[in-house]
Amino acid sequence: MSHDCSFLTDVLPDSQVSFGDADRADHSTDWGTETDAIGSSPDAVVRPESTEDVATVLAAASERGVPVTPYAAGTSLEGNPVAAFGGVSLDLMRMDEIVEIRPDDFQIDVEPGVMGSAVDEAAADHGMFFPPLPSSGDFSTIGGMIVNDASGQKTVKYGEVADWVLELEVVTAEGEVMTCGSKAVKTSAGYNLKDLIVGSEGTLGVVTRATLELEGRPEQIRGGRATFSDIDDASAAVFDAVRSGVDVAKIELIDALTARMANAYLDTGLDDEPMIFLEFHANHGIKEEIDFCRAVFESHDVERFEVSDDDARMAELWEARNELAFALRAYDPDLKPLKPGDVTVPISKYPELVGFAKDLAAEHDLLIPTFGHAGDGNVHYTVFAEADDPERLELAEEVSDRIVRRAIELGGTSTGEHGIGVGKREYLELEHGEVGVEMMRRVKRAFDPEDVLNPGKVFPETIPEGGRIGRAGDD
Amino acid sequence: MSHDCSFLTDVLPDSQVSFGDADRADHSTDWGTETDAIGSSPDAVVRPESTEDVATVLAAASERGVPVTPYAAGTSLEGNPVAAFGGVSLDLMRMDEIVEIRPDDFQIDVEPGVMGSAVDEAAADHGMFFPPLPSSGDFSTIGGMIVNDASGQKTVKYGEVADWVLELEVVTAEGEVMTCGSKAVKTSAGYNLKDLIVGSEGTLGVVTRATLELEGRPEQIRGGRATFSDIDDASAAVFDAVRSGVDVAKIELIDALTARMANAYLDTGLDDEPMIFLEFHANHGIKEEIDFCRAVFESHDVERFEVSDDDARMAELWEARNELAFALRAYDPDLKPLKPGDVTVPISKYPELVGFAKDLAAEHDLLIPTFGHAGDGNVHYTVFAEADDPERLELAEEVSDRIVRRAIELGGTSTGEHGIGVGKREYLELEHGEVGVEMMRRVKRAFDPEDVLNPGKVFPETIPEGGRIGRAGDD
Repeated sequence: MSHDCSFLTDVLPDSQVSFGDADRADHSTDWGTETDAIGSSPDAVVRPESTEDVATVLAAASERGVPVTPYAAGTSLEGNPVAAFGGVSLDLMRMDEIVEIRPDDFQIDVEPGVMGSAVDEAAADHGMFFPPLPSSGDFSTIGGMIVNDASGQKTVKYGEVADWVLELEVVTAEGEVMTCGSKAVKTSAGYNLKDLIVGSEGTLGVVTRATLELEGRPEQIRGGRATFSDIDDASAAVFDAVRSGVDVAKIELIDALTARMANAYLDTGLDDEPMIFLEFHANHGIKEEIDFCRAVFESHDVERFEVSDDDARMAELWEARNELAFALRAYDPDLKPLKPGDVTVPISKYPELVGFAKDLAAEHDLLIPTFGHAGDGNVHYTVFAEADDPERLELAEEVSDRIVRRAIELGGTSTGEHGIGVGKREYLELEHGEVGVEMMRRVKRAFDPEDVLNPGKVFPETIPEGGRIGRAGDD
Repeated sequence: MSHDCSFLTDVLPDSQVSFGDADRADHSTDWGTETDAIGSSPDAVVRPESTEDVATVLAAASERGVPVTPYAAGTSLEGNPVAAFGGVSLDLMRMDEIVEIRPDDFQIDVEPGVMGSAVDEAAADHGMFFPPLPSSGDFSTIGGMIVNDASGQKTVKYGEVADWVLELEVVTAEGEVMTCGSKAVKTSAGYNLKDLIVGSEGTLGVVTRATLELEGRPEQIRGGRATFSDIDDASAAVFDAVRSGVDVAKIELIDALTARMANAYLDTGLDDEPMIFLEFHANHGIKEEIDFCRAVFESHDVERFEVSDDDARMAELWEARNELAFALRAYDPDLKPLKPGDVTVPISKYPELVGFAKDLAAEHDLLIPTFGHAGDGNVHYTVFAEADDPERLELAEEVSDRIVRRAIELGGTSTGEHGIGVGKREYLELEHGEVGVEMMRRVKRAFDPEDVLNPGKVFPETIPEGGRIGRAGDD
């Protein structure tokens, strides 16, 4: 689908508007659609430099019924920022200023294009940090994290990105500017539009500024790794640690297959065993907390348990986890990894879901490494299939779909932290029911009556018969 | 305004429907409007016993355009559950079942009429607790806490009630049942309707069931009190403790005037000095944490600092804080306390706001005790004026209004944890701007096109010229 976007040069300087093929192609994929494009490019890419620029573009596009899809670093996995029906790709990467930091209030005001790790660095100058920062903070922006409701390894202790967003400046579909939330850490004044914008994937408004809360850096940080001979023991250890109230800042579990892929990639010579990666944060009593955790793990037959306060050693112990995304991609050129799954279940159901995936892998002779933020019940998995065999690739997609449906049956969700985008639309009604989705549609119409903002996302009715929007590519 | 509610006996058994004057009067006030009614009674009170009952009432009322206003324990302070335009008062107190507790997932499912403390008690049987429970938990319901976005003393460590709500079953204005949120602790699937219902004061839907998250009880709890000769020192001590990362579970500040009222009521013989009430929760290292706090307080000239692990002594140390509401009411029969104020500002502005209130008190020769959840920047204050002097009472209202406006100017909110109801409607636009309030209106229309659910609340346009809805009573 294509739209006349020539009006853009009337409302913004030429230096902020591009109709070039390379720019348009750059904005037609995200990390999840790299090899599996959704078959649509924007007609133009604009690069606003201020809230006013965003408002100008939206007012003009809205008047003409031209879709506008916000785009930032493009690290999303579900096609969230890809212009599914053409129109304008609103690239926010020039809005990358840290506007103000108010250390006395633990607050920082940032533009949406600021990288996650830049927030952490700015906070560090004042002895603080941004606790929910996902480990993708070097590659992804605060704006993207907010609108896709991101979370990460430290969520088990500190909650999600959403929990640390106090106030948002938002440009509406019609190009008006509103502020939602409050710089007070508590408010019960009116409807909570702030948390409605969070996770709305750019379909309800464009975030142009965010006030985030920060926290003082813990005085003590320790990192480590534990290995188990059996995945059931490892799962039980995570579950029991959380249940016993062990105060962990990170608790990540990978299975033996994932360990094999990581060990091969890193040439570690380590055994291919289930591993738990740990981090502890405290001002006082960290040794006791670690001993407490060790005792819990020992009751589940942990094989090795090492926690260090030395930065270099901590990095070594965590290397297999930190390099995982690369290890999986590099594992076997003949095998194609599907887009990573991101399902979350109530924590007691974590072992059941991982077992279900393992059984499916055995049944169909597929590789399905599982890993994830086990303390939150968030399972990531990747289904591999023979890259040159369309039938096996289709089977892999079906298996992935069965894992998602099983997670939902267990009281869980199709997407813990990556959003719906294009890829998860078919599960929305399964999770929220007809009435719930109808209410979401009404909210969408309330905010964006003309369906200008990021059309084709979130809602299932935009899935054409038989598949995704203009799904293209090699499968 | 009155509505024909005779249809109710067609859709529910007689035992669940009341047209009696006493019942109607009981449902025409809340704690905040006890002596200052908003001048309207419901035409009928219904007592649903199930989600189906609620759906039946809403479908029937919606069809007839009869307003429905949910009511629970009536402990709100802003007239939130009072039927401002007559119609049906939907009394949820018979829906008081703890439906299920799943200790392995730290989850509990409850009906809206369950008292807050009952959740804590049910959790205690499994070694857990409901961390954000406000100290009013003995009097107020979970349903009321959710829809009014409550918080309390432990919010400084554990967050608000909202942060512990995972999933809600909600009956819509049209009588349909939807579920929002997820039993997974993390989800980014679709719009966050759950946090939109939270704090919506029964104007968007009726909560009929909630899944709450619980937490393991800390192994160590210590409580105590610190006194200061000067309020500026006490404020600075709170601020510095929070800023330094002292891990407090409660940190409550009262000024010397409030201490005087509490001491008089309890006949303590203690000095009338600013006091900070403290509670610490930890599994390990609690002694170090308390010593850390003491050191911070000593740098601000604390006079006495006592923390105990003995339950009886802890209760003694906290008595002045816990009995405060009663102490203020009893202080002087010739003085009338206005409804308590509940403003929140960024924490660094707490001393400025308290100073502003103190200056106004001096200027107008009024008593204005201030106290509050200082670690969150949440100031409660009560303006007292001569009960028999309408001019002085009006002056007191004006002074209270100036404090609210000052809080908003300082980046704060008119209502930290009590909602807008009737009493705070005039500030909504000041806080959220025209566009923000217009978006809230659109959300209201999306959920409740016929304005059936709790009309007259939250939005400013329902304020008649010159005052509140049919404001009646002695002033």
